[in-house]
Amino acid sequence: MTSASEAASIDDAPRGESLTIAQIARLAGVSIATVSKVVNGRIDVAPETREVVEELIRRHGYRRQKRPAKPAPLIEIVLHELQGLYGIEVINGVNRVAREHRLAVVVSELEGHHTPGRGWVEDVLARRPTGVISVFSYLTEEQRTQLSSRGIPLVLLDPTGEPAHEFPSVGATNWNGGLTATRHLLDLGHRRIGVITGPEHILSSRARLDGHRAAMDLAGVPADPELVRVGDFQIADGLRLTRELLRLEDPPTAVFASNDGEAIGVYQAAAEAGLRIPEDLSVVGFDDLPMTEWTIPPLTTVRQPLHDMAAAAAEMVVALARGETPAQHRVELATELIVRGSTAGPSARG
Amino acid sequence: MTSASEAASIDDAPRGESLTIAQIARLAGVSIATVSKVVNGRIDVAPETREVVEELIRRHGYRRQKRPAKPAPLIEIVLHELQGLYGIEVINGVNRVAREHRLAVVVSELEGHHTPGRGWVEDVLARRPTGVISVFSYLTEEQRTQLSSRGIPLVLLDPTGEPAHEFPSVGATNWNGGLTATRHLLDLGHRRIGVITGPEHILSSRARLDGHRAAMDLAGVPADPELVRVGDFQIADGLRLTRELLRLEDPPTAVFASNDGEAIGVYQAAAEAGLRIPEDLSVVGFDDLPMTEWTIPPLTTVRQPLHDMAAAAAEMVVALARGETPAQHRVELATELIVRGSTAGPSARG
Repeated sequence: MTSASEAASIDDAPRGESLTIAQIARLAGVSIATVSKVVNGRIDVAPETREVVEELIRRHGYRRQKRPAKPAPLIEIVLHELQGLYGIEVINGVNRVAREHRLAVVVSELEGHHTPGRGWVEDVLARRPTGVISVFSYLTEEQRTQLSSRGIPLVLLDPTGEPAHEFPSVGATNWNGGLTATRHLLDLGHRRIGVITGPEHILSSRARLDGHRAAMDLAGVPADPELVRVGDFQIADGLRLTRELLRLEDPPTAVFASNDGEAIGVYQAAAEAGLRIPEDLSVVGFDDLPMTEWTIPPLTTVRQPLHDMAAAAAEMVVALARGETPAQHRVELATELIVRGSTAGPSARG
Repeated sequence: MTSASEAASIDDAPRGESLTIAQIARLAGVSIATVSKVVNGRIDVAPETREVVEELIRRHGYRRQKRPAKPAPLIEIVLHELQGLYGIEVINGVNRVAREHRLAVVVSELEGHHTPGRGWVEDVLARRPTGVISVFSYLTEEQRTQLSSRGIPLVLLDPTGEPAHEFPSVGATNWNGGLTATRHLLDLGHRRIGVITGPEHILSSRARLDGHRAAMDLAGVPADPELVRVGDFQIADGLRLTRELLRLEDPPTAVFASNDGEAIGVYQAAAEAGLRIPEDLSVVGFDDLPMTEWTIPPLTTVRQPLHDMAAAAAEMVVALARGETPAQHRVELATELIVRGSTAGPSARG
């Protein structure tokens, strides 16, 4: 066995051509059986050996010598966490397409970590699914390469990285959603509009904020940076940050929350402060989760078609698994403002 | 090929002993390959042929001649529907155990039907999972037999049939929960207590109602049948049935909803009627879904440890797959009253 540091021979591999298992075995100084184990996600291989083999695959690519075995009739969803109704919508959307194609849906939840833990990808390789949908999760480059080198299609749903994705992806028109939400509040007469954002490193969250800013700018209403608070898409952030906003000398008359969870927190803070929604404070959410019809009052929110987005991602996986190129590499489904009872004109107080 | 009606030869099979594939093939008048396809859930077999073979397996049992292949590292959850946070709790609980055992979790949702559609069980047989957890779903006897004849363990979670289950099961102490919820309201001074139940054919729902009645009876408070309304565990039922209750000549001062969804509907109806919770109307729910902390006011509810129940079911599946007998055939985890802000003494109005 060759350790990673000793594997100078890696650089001797022929350039520009992917390697066969036999070539990888020779270069790594291990048996063909060992390379085959790594390729198939078996875990009974020493970590250092696995690293050397993965490094060779990463650098040179790996060429199957026989036609690959048919993948298992599984489609995998990997989520950073399964806490709210967001995940339910995604699972149901994937299930709709999976049923048509007689695929079973595997759901992996990463305990709140955005990067799947060690072991997750090996298990996926061993299962040889038809494809993987990564929801709001950061797969590492290594993990993505491990999937692609084995010919397992990966589609990103609601991705949070750069817009130019190496992998096909499905998103929603987040910027438009932020614009529409804020225009609605401006049309009602609001000028002091608070914003509770999602995490700053998440592009969908930035896009919603930028849409808000564009609406303010186009309406010639100055945007007060004090009114923008950075949240983490949790109910507790909506509560905490709305408390902050309401303590301002000139508090907002409306709040645009970047997801429905945060909007629930805004409701909570309003109740605490004895403010009525929408009479004293208007609220707009984002996502349109099933629960929002039932809040008191029902929430005005930007509908993100999560169910359809998940179904579109599943369709892409199926196409890729058949060797087809999806019609589009990047699909953005439209968001839509759903006006319910949580928005009204500002009161005299505002 | 022999059709089901012609298959008189079925009755000629040796009694009291399970059949080999070869014996089944002979009795059914089909090839061994065909029987093997049926056993393994392949669908390229004429429906009538499949029926004859399944009937033979059902009557006589099927005896593997070689040691069965290792099952796939999958654990399947089948739910009647994935609509609310209930499903999330179950998936997370199973995932906790699945991760330990490096099993992937397959989630099948049955589009609201309580009986899996045609085709579901064949897909499961083809996947050969380590086991199946049926959540609040009625598998048909045929489907259950198809699983057990292939040695695929089945565990029922929150089962809705008779208490004496053919299969191992995990539940919660529903009767105790109903008793505790109502005792809490009685202790606060309520005498007119409305109940919104779950469906009448669901035992967990009956048990909650019976617990309520026992508490009333033990306290010497007459139970008014008019105050009991039959719901279907949906938010909309809570709303509609509370409207009915509030229209009564002598309306209740408190409502015990048989799940948290219905309790949300009670909140909605109270808001409509201009009643404050808990000042004018007390509300107790059942389940303690994550959302209930965030209702306004936070909901007093009976905690059903769904996460732990699902984990216990998964542990049972793993034990059964190892050929072990689970320590208990039926486990009921304790429910617990969580007092929050939705309950108080009745106002003078009541």
